[in-house]
Amino acid sequence: MPKLRVHCFTISLDGYGAGPDQSPENPLGVGGEELHDWLVATRTWRKMHGKEGGAEGIDDDFAARPWENVGAWIMGRNMFGPVRGPWPDESWRGWWGDNPPYHCPVFVLTHHPRPPLQMKGGTTFHFVTTGAESALEQAVASAGGKDVLVGGGASTIQQYLRARLIDELHYAIAPILLGGGARLFDNLGGGPQGYECVELVGSPTAAHVRLSRTPG
Amino acid sequence: MPKLRVHCFTISLDGYGAGPDQSPENPLGVGGEELHDWLVATRTWRKMHGKEGGAEGIDDDFAARPWENVGAWIMGRNMFGPVRGPWPDESWRGWWGDNPPYHCPVFVLTHHPRPPLQMKGGTTFHFVTTGAESALEQAVASAGGKDVLVGGGASTIQQYLRARLIDELHYAIAPILLGGGARLFDNLGGGPQGYECVELVGSPTAAHVRLSRTPG
Repeated sequence: MPKLRVHCFTISLDGYGAGPDQSPENPLGVGGEELHDWLVATRTWRKMHGKEGGAEGIDDDFAARPWENVGAWIMGRNMFGPVRGPWPDESWRGWWGDNPPYHCPVFVLTHHPRPPLQMKGGTTFHFVTTGAESALEQAVASAGGKDVLVGGGASTIQQYLRARLIDELHYAIAPILLGGGARLFDNLGGGPQGYECVELVGSPTAAHVRLSRTPG
Repeated sequence: MPKLRVHCFTISLDGYGAGPDQSPENPLGVGGEELHDWLVATRTWRKMHGKEGGAEGIDDDFAARPWENVGAWIMGRNMFGPVRGPWPDESWRGWWGDNPPYHCPVFVLTHHPRPPLQMKGGTTFHFVTTGAESALEQAVASAGGKDVLVGGGASTIQQYLRARLIDELHYAIAPILLGGGARLFDNLGGGPQGYECVELVGSPTAAHVRLSRTPG
């Protein structure tokens, strides 16, 4: 069975997956860009961006996993871009340039319809207005038997955690304080119910946690 | 200058320093006792409790630090015991038996006056009704030039963080989910302001974080 996975979602020491005041200038909120210092230093990340060198080891092992056996992605609208409310036009095409790193269908959760957006390199953004479970069905159907990844942000991951649809969740803890923003562990109604920690490991630049859905 | 320090305060992956529904049966809330699995397995902890053996290494190094160069402790009333409201009598004498591990003055923050309580082994509990800063003044005055430790819980630590009175804060992250309770990073008004992470390190059973007050 294909799995629903989360990888490399990063939170601050005080628990925020994005800082306060998200904007086009600060896609991850004020101070939020530093969340990914551990990730952008890895060999995997640098290679994906045409650069040589980079850190190997624990961080790099985690950085490589999102790209293994993945057939489709799901993300929230705020991860796709800073536009809020109805789409004024089709000019916003994501943060990632003409050739996004996904190379497969990406389902964007939104309340506002928009035609699919085909990018270079095999990425097509599909805008889903029928809810998180519907997006998952469409993602699984288009993933060709491979797994589906939830990219983020926090509220999107929470929707799938509340429904207990995520199979495994890797997140990193970055050594910064943000003071506000979007918490990963929030709006879970006393949960996440039915998950356990299967790994907690430190690298020199982050701590990594893997949660797994318990059987039954 | 004596320092105000926090050591070994432990939070869950979802950020809680105690689980939900604290009670005499569950002093740290439901599931909260597991927070300290890393600590009670250490050689230092076992030795303090008259047992042999135990883990050495990172966890044990952190477990030993609360007891170095300490002249007084401060704790919140809920860390002292489960009694809420006015003290009905003087029968509650803490969680720690006749000979508590502090062996120095311990200042308990409460809204309800009570005479000092002298225990075996040099520990005296003083009940302070004049606020956190007053408790700190009294603790420093009685610490004989040594440092003062804040034991917890979360709301007590927050009071001193908001006032930027804590010099260094070590906390551990335990590989459990509690789903509710008292968050460490809460009620900080967008802070903690003026603190930075100076260490993030993993052991096999926990991640350890040290925050330090920034100069100025």
